[in-house]
Amino acid sequence: MERHEAPYGLHADRYELAMAWSYWKDGRADEPAVFDTFFRKLPFGGGFAVAAGLPVLLEALADFRFSEDQLAFLERDGFGSDFLDYLRTFRFGAEVEAVPEGEVVFPLEPILRLSGGLLECQLVETLVLNTLNFQSLVATKAARCREAAGDRGLSEFGLRRAQGAGGHAASRAACVGGFDSTSNMAAAHAYGLRAAGTMAHSFVQSCDSEREAFRRFAALHGASTVLLLDTYDTLRSGLPNALEVAAEQREAGAGILGVRLDSGDLAYLAKEVRKGLDEAGFPELKIVASNQLDEQVIQSLLLQGAPIDLFGVGTAVAVGRPDAALDGVYKLAEIDGRPCLKLSENVEKITLPGRKQVSRYRDGDGRFLADAIHLAGEPPPDRIWHPHEAGKNRSLDPSTAEPLLRSYGRPGQGSRPEEGVEEAAARVRERLADLPPEHRRFENPHVYKVGLSPALLALREELADRERTELPATAP
Amino acid sequence: MERHEAPYGLHADRYELAMAWSYWKDGRADEPAVFDTFFRKLPFGGGFAVAAGLPVLLEALADFRFSEDQLAFLERDGFGSDFLDYLRTFRFGAEVEAVPEGEVVFPLEPILRLSGGLLECQLVETLVLNTLNFQSLVATKAARCREAAGDRGLSEFGLRRAQGAGGHAASRAACVGGFDSTSNMAAAHAYGLRAAGTMAHSFVQSCDSEREAFRRFAALHGASTVLLLDTYDTLRSGLPNALEVAAEQREAGAGILGVRLDSGDLAYLAKEVRKGLDEAGFPELKIVASNQLDEQVIQSLLLQGAPIDLFGVGTAVAVGRPDAALDGVYKLAEIDGRPCLKLSENVEKITLPGRKQVSRYRDGDGRFLADAIHLAGEPPPDRIWHPHEAGKNRSLDPSTAEPLLRSYGRPGQGSRPEEGVEEAAARVRERLADLPPEHRRFENPHVYKVGLSPALLALREELADRERTELPATAP
Repeated sequence: MERHEAPYGLHADRYELAMAWSYWKDGRADEPAVFDTFFRKLPFGGGFAVAAGLPVLLEALADFRFSEDQLAFLERDGFGSDFLDYLRTFRFGAEVEAVPEGEVVFPLEPILRLSGGLLECQLVETLVLNTLNFQSLVATKAARCREAAGDRGLSEFGLRRAQGAGGHAASRAACVGGFDSTSNMAAAHAYGLRAAGTMAHSFVQSCDSEREAFRRFAALHGASTVLLLDTYDTLRSGLPNALEVAAEQREAGAGILGVRLDSGDLAYLAKEVRKGLDEAGFPELKIVASNQLDEQVIQSLLLQGAPIDLFGVGTAVAVGRPDAALDGVYKLAEIDGRPCLKLSENVEKITLPGRKQVSRYRDGDGRFLADAIHLAGEPPPDRIWHPHEAGKNRSLDPSTAEPLLRSYGRPGQGSRPEEGVEEAAARVRERLADLPPEHRRFENPHVYKVGLSPALLALREELADRERTELPATAP
Repeated sequence: MERHEAPYGLHADRYELAMAWSYWKDGRADEPAVFDTFFRKLPFGGGFAVAAGLPVLLEALADFRFSEDQLAFLERDGFGSDFLDYLRTFRFGAEVEAVPEGEVVFPLEPILRLSGGLLECQLVETLVLNTLNFQSLVATKAARCREAAGDRGLSEFGLRRAQGAGGHAASRAACVGGFDSTSNMAAAHAYGLRAAGTMAHSFVQSCDSEREAFRRFAALHGASTVLLLDTYDTLRSGLPNALEVAAEQREAGAGILGVRLDSGDLAYLAKEVRKGLDEAGFPELKIVASNQLDEQVIQSLLLQGAPIDLFGVGTAVAVGRPDAALDGVYKLAEIDGRPCLKLSENVEKITLPGRKQVSRYRDGDGRFLADAIHLAGEPPPDRIWHPHEAGKNRSLDPSTAEPLLRSYGRPGQGSRPEEGVEEAAARVRERLADLPPEHRRFENPHVYKVGLSPALLALREELADRERTELPATAP
């Protein structure tokens, strides 16, 4: 729908190109740098997030280059031909370390680290953030829907109200987070997802009567038929017509799969329709429900005992409502071997310096207990400090710790991701099963503990103090 | 970033392909059909919406086809080879009528109508909705930011937190709605937008000191330099360093453009920085402000007298927060020459039957007064009826009426859009200037009147009554 953007060179904010040019001009393009990606706030008021998008990002970094057409645009935008010659042969050469797709993650934890030349790392800032922020947002929303739905079916139906071509990444991330299928054919094709769908009101309207529409659809689609009941009136028209057609199909030795509710009080209607189906001798028919669903509505429907077999979730998962964006940032942590940070008047916004690892600790039952952010060179600490509340600390057993950041090599030099959506979805299931339920509940989830190692805390304080003492005592 | 989707054949929900197959199998592919696109609720609690995305949609419809790769996917998904042969040569042949991009529109009004074969119209449902819903959402948000910003500069900075590749459509729609520029290079390239940007915290951090960083950046970027003040401390460090470098540049016969605030209390800081710049003899330097801005914050900053020259707006406009989606739908209005509708227990959700036009009326001062939705064959009515409240009506002067829906021909047969973003942006300015301010305010905007012609109202009642009388008296 949108015009193509490959080969990705221009998937950037203008200031990244301006800075890249500055570094190149100053002879600092290859100065060694380390950048971290992390977010500050869990989405949806929840107790966890699911990291997603990494394989898509790795592929984009591997394919990152500038086409002649893009270079001509940069020339019109004022960039000189010597710099464009540099970009013409530019390939992304930095090393990627990241948490694998589907890992459960928390605020302040680096979920991706790039180590490479200052210029190449700066140039991909927006590509990194745009990919990981959005897919992590949607995978988190999808995982919450899965928490609510238990083992009922979940299908993503959101492309029509998704944010343009972002809807394809949304369908992918929904399946990472726990959806079984998507209505989105382009995403199913591109990412190997299961495609699903039923029928539209227009099909019913386009026929002389609803019964005739059901009859035709069932004749064409046989055992996979799901009849949409609410074009005219779910209980007075849709259900009796569906029962009649289901009986005809059965008589003909075929069958249908189920019916779909798409408006009205879904809890009431599902119960009435279930009763109608059962009493007519069709206990095997499934009930699909859709219409403005999200994790809260699914939870409420199931608490009310609504006999729904499959939920179709649209807008809420496809755009990650209500948040619609994850606040992930990309910050310089080390330059030319020196750890560095960004100060802020808000102490919570001071960044964590240096090359870091995240270690996850378990409790006596093997469940996730806490995470430590520490320097990459040190072993997992036996005590962590609260990132912002001075003096608050707790001890941990390092023998239970596992590192979360893994190396993904240098995607620009042929290192390609191997893992598909199914593997990532399996990881989400497995990791969330180890996260205690108090962090997974929707209302006031218990805050999962993320602390700093003493060495990282000391480094941050030292660097912050040094920057502060270089400031004059008062404003001019 | 996402894998490519052109040539658009699969930019569809699975049920559209299932229905297309059904129509083809039943010999109804070419049955004449009319589909409308409209929305039910204005976004952002506002009093108007801006239609956007039409040129992008027309281009996609013109290019709509199925690649061999996509056909192979459909074969794996179960579609038979005879149907795939049909799709192999499929071209979109329907006629498009629509309001031009940048028109101010209201709930229930058809903003696009497709007239063509049942199959082709059904197949593009999701492509139509995905394109128009999202771009209209963002253009509306952008127009609200422009309302708040008056003649100050507005630049869109949201790609890093946008919804994947949807960020490119967002940058385009932001410029339709009233933004001057975008940071998004890919969108600037694809859609001919103005690209803009300053510098990042990482540039400052990567140098030995902030002053050294400013000096290097100014030496490289000269008169277009905008210095980012808040890496360490806006007033104690950023401002004095910027003043020093501005003075050096002036001495060297050059100059800089301005400074940027990106955190803290923007109203307070802007005033202090303005004072500092003026007192040091730099009244010409501009102040750029960014950080979680939206139309409400911009309005508040200007009400406080903040001397900000340019606002950088990111996430709020790029994802259309807080709504994140427009609720546009696509409904069958006529089949084989017969007007039709979709009933609903909720009377507000009963659709409007038949081929329709929207006419806009003006008051004595030439400002927009009300819109009539009427049958395409009838002249603008001299009286409109409330769509849902029985009996409520008002008279209008048809001599002031202008039709909103125009023909855009058959994009599949070579009819291509001529209009760019600048023309659409000019239309937004012109049309909003004619919309009375009580519909443009943010708090409790006055509801703009949209009514039905007597003939359309009578047709809806007649068809709804007919469908209702076909229902049994009670539920089974």
